[in-house]
Amino acid sequence: MSAYKMISIPEAQDIVLSHTQPLGAVTVGLAGALGRVLSEDVRAPDSLPPFPASIKDGYAVVAADGCGEFPVIGESRAGQLDDVPVRPGTVAYITTGAPVPPGADAVVQVEDTEALPPGEGEGEGEGEGEGEGGQRRVRIAKAARPGQDIRPVGSDITEGDIVLRAGELVGVAEVGILATVGAVQLRVHATPKVAVLSTGDEVVDPATRPLGPGQIRDANRSMLLAAAARGGAGEVVDLGVARDTPGHLEGCLAAAIDQRVDVLITSGGVSMGDRDLIKPLLQRQGTIHFGRVRMKPGKPLTFATLSLPQQGGRQMLVFGLPGNPVSSFVCFHLVVLPALRKMAGWAHPALRRVAARLTSPLRLDPERPEYHRATLQWSTVPPGTPAAAAAAAEPPPPAAAAPSPAPLAACELWAVSTGNQISSRLLSARSANALLEIPCAEGVLPAGSLVSALLIDDLGCMPVPAGGVAATPGF
Amino acid sequence: MSAYKMISIPEAQDIVLSHTQPLGAVTVGLAGALGRVLSEDVRAPDSLPPFPASIKDGYAVVAADGCGEFPVIGESRAGQLDDVPVRPGTVAYITTGAPVPPGADAVVQVEDTEALPPGEGEGEGEGEGEGEGGQRRVRIAKAARPGQDIRPVGSDITEGDIVLRAGELVGVAEVGILATVGAVQLRVHATPKVAVLSTGDEVVDPATRPLGPGQIRDANRSMLLAAAARGGAGEVVDLGVARDTPGHLEGCLAAAIDQRVDVLITSGGVSMGDRDLIKPLLQRQGTIHFGRVRMKPGKPLTFATLSLPQQGGRQMLVFGLPGNPVSSFVCFHLVVLPALRKMAGWAHPALRRVAARLTSPLRLDPERPEYHRATLQWSTVPPGTPAAAAAAAEPPPPAAAAPSPAPLAACELWAVSTGNQISSRLLSARSANALLEIPCAEGVLPAGSLVSALLIDDLGCMPVPAGGVAATPGF
Repeated sequence: MSAYKMISIPEAQDIVLSHTQPLGAVTVGLAGALGRVLSEDVRAPDSLPPFPASIKDGYAVVAADGCGEFPVIGESRAGQLDDVPVRPGTVAYITTGAPVPPGADAVVQVEDTEALPPGEGEGEGEGEGEGEGGQRRVRIAKAARPGQDIRPVGSDITEGDIVLRAGELVGVAEVGILATVGAVQLRVHATPKVAVLSTGDEVVDPATRPLGPGQIRDANRSMLLAAAARGGAGEVVDLGVARDTPGHLEGCLAAAIDQRVDVLITSGGVSMGDRDLIKPLLQRQGTIHFGRVRMKPGKPLTFATLSLPQQGGRQMLVFGLPGNPVSSFVCFHLVVLPALRKMAGWAHPALRRVAARLTSPLRLDPERPEYHRATLQWSTVPPGTPAAAAAAAEPPPPAAAAPSPAPLAACELWAVSTGNQISSRLLSARSANALLEIPCAEGVLPAGSLVSALLIDDLGCMPVPAGGVAATPGF
Repeated sequence: MSAYKMISIPEAQDIVLSHTQPLGAVTVGLAGALGRVLSEDVRAPDSLPPFPASIKDGYAVVAADGCGEFPVIGESRAGQLDDVPVRPGTVAYITTGAPVPPGADAVVQVEDTEALPPGEGEGEGEGEGEGEGGQRRVRIAKAARPGQDIRPVGSDITEGDIVLRAGELVGVAEVGILATVGAVQLRVHATPKVAVLSTGDEVVDPATRPLGPGQIRDANRSMLLAAAARGGAGEVVDLGVARDTPGHLEGCLAAAIDQRVDVLITSGGVSMGDRDLIKPLLQRQGTIHFGRVRMKPGKPLTFATLSLPQQGGRQMLVFGLPGNPVSSFVCFHLVVLPALRKMAGWAHPALRRVAARLTSPLRLDPERPEYHRATLQWSTVPPGTPAAAAAAAEPPPPAAAAPSPAPLAACELWAVSTGNQISSRLLSARSANALLEIPCAEGVLPAGSLVSALLIDDLGCMPVPAGGVAATPGF
């Protein structure tokens, strides 16, 4: 019997996060901030626009002048200003984004004007300067309201405003916002250094062809290195494969410590076999917080912390994932990824949960809740149509005659199972963008059942129903 | 008046994709395959498992022997095999994943067995070998079915199977699948080399503090470089800021050509001002396919192709985005990103469309359909509650007493507007994960309206309602 109490996945997740702290702050440049979490508020040092700015290409006018023909007494181009005030009866040419000259209180877009030949259109009383020496003139065809097409100073951002807060994830737009306010050196949370180690005498390098007797290729190491990189690791370290001897495994752990990794992820060696050496080693060198979790797949999932007095007392997290590739895939997402996110500063590190309907019935497991791999898609797929399910799971057919798009209101999230869920079959994670939380019970969940789904991949690349999804009616 | 016909966004998207082709294939290693699209099917060179493999740690048995006490005549450990057949009346110790020895037809997990002291338990008729010279013995407490806890040869993957198809995006699981079948050199589509150029005499480096008269900082370049990198560009080239002279702009275009970029993205200089030099230049050197699009923001969006006989007739795409940062953000996602994805081999390069309900009313624009920036979240937020909307738009409050999670069946996607949508206000893209397709019409869309939403960021980091979302009932 295992010496470890069987706990639930929510308990396991709580334990992991309670032993995980956000990493300290580092300074990065603007390009390096993408995907990072700010550790300090960012304030605007000046207002935007810094001057009253034109929204259009056209003419800066005195609104009270209304329509008519006017001399163009100067120009205000973005980045190149004539320092001439606009007095009543005159206008100035202006380009989008340029400062509105003093005296003007509105902009008339060029589409509502007509350029006149120099000197034409005299005698309409717009004031002095008309027709002089070939001066440019313009007809204003549409009277302006005061303030029209002008962005007042600070209307987008006011000096001193907090534009982004500590804890915010920097995405594409946020990079632009930071550039706008001149924040080119940012304080962000450090990202964890993560090492990955496979274990097992039978495990050989993926390049091995043909396989020797009893050998299998190491799928976990490449996969977990990719998962850590995508999950926000700042650096990943490939520790290779540990042989099934206590000495070799201990050497690998020492290497992880020497390289000062924040997180060590191992796979294999946590079951009940007499060569399952991970737990005994972690027990000797650190504290095992759990060693069995009531989940399918992934039951032997193990989590430990090592306190390292020789390195200033810093802490290293160790996740002992099961050796079956699906188990390690599922466990990574459920417990390791939230820890990496918390270290990187995420305020909400847990996987996002949505609801989806099953396209086909699922047999329940009476002993453990199951994390069933599925591909979510936004479509009208009716439950229980194997053809629709198969179409969604398969890569798209070559371009056919365009079918009509699915109506917006009839669509919802459907979960297409990836098929046989045995934990050795990594093909069950192919194209999976969600882990369905299937309750532990007797019987079968019928097609059409609403289940919770944890997002493990970007829905921005989810399968598209034939014909796509219609836009808002009337769009 | 503009010389360019006003077209719709779907027309613009079709035109762009009709001038965009998937790039050719290149070879990458396993680690480099993440995020790439396969250009060839990948087949398994051998079966998985390559031998009948144990699913558990335990004992390989002859199922017909049933319960009782048996001598342990050998071991089959993963990677380390005794070459001893299991005859009736004997068993062999076996670890998870190890080959089932010849003669055995089932595995009994260690939990259903009891190790006995050597030599104990004689005389129960399990056959020869019992009690000899301290031989290990075990009690089998639970009879096995034939085939129990054995994965037959090829049950996960059969030799010759296509495990991944040309056109599939390589994610984390796919890296593992590739490693499993020894596919360590992959043929994938090349990814585009993308250059980004800002334009305008008023545009200064983001590091500039304080700003001189009429100056604004360049938000677009950093943002578009980040967007291109995240959108799958293989390489990005920063071309700086072009001054408002035809000569300087032409020099920048020449630099993009010299550097053999696949895509040039410019921002600014496409409006109707007399220094808007992008369109005239593109007209001289290539073909402008459109120069005005009926959309808000982004009307002056321009797309051209340059055919380059001096470079073997290769084609370069040029996207002339408007200078307002929100316009360039929206236009990037609507037309540039699908082009980058198609070049990188995506079969379905368009943004994914889902439906979401408005949390607050939206005033419609009677002239142009609007791409309204919004933050989607999966929650029970009722429409028209400013408090809920504000909570969702704000960063999370410091840990409070845990509220109860939102019930799964009551949740759906809600779209929280990012506020004032003026195209200069990049804060309207802060935390936005969707562009709402708001139809062009008079009046107001009431809160609770179902609108289509194009995904522009990963919902895996969307805001979480206070308390989160409940799991499947009974989980």
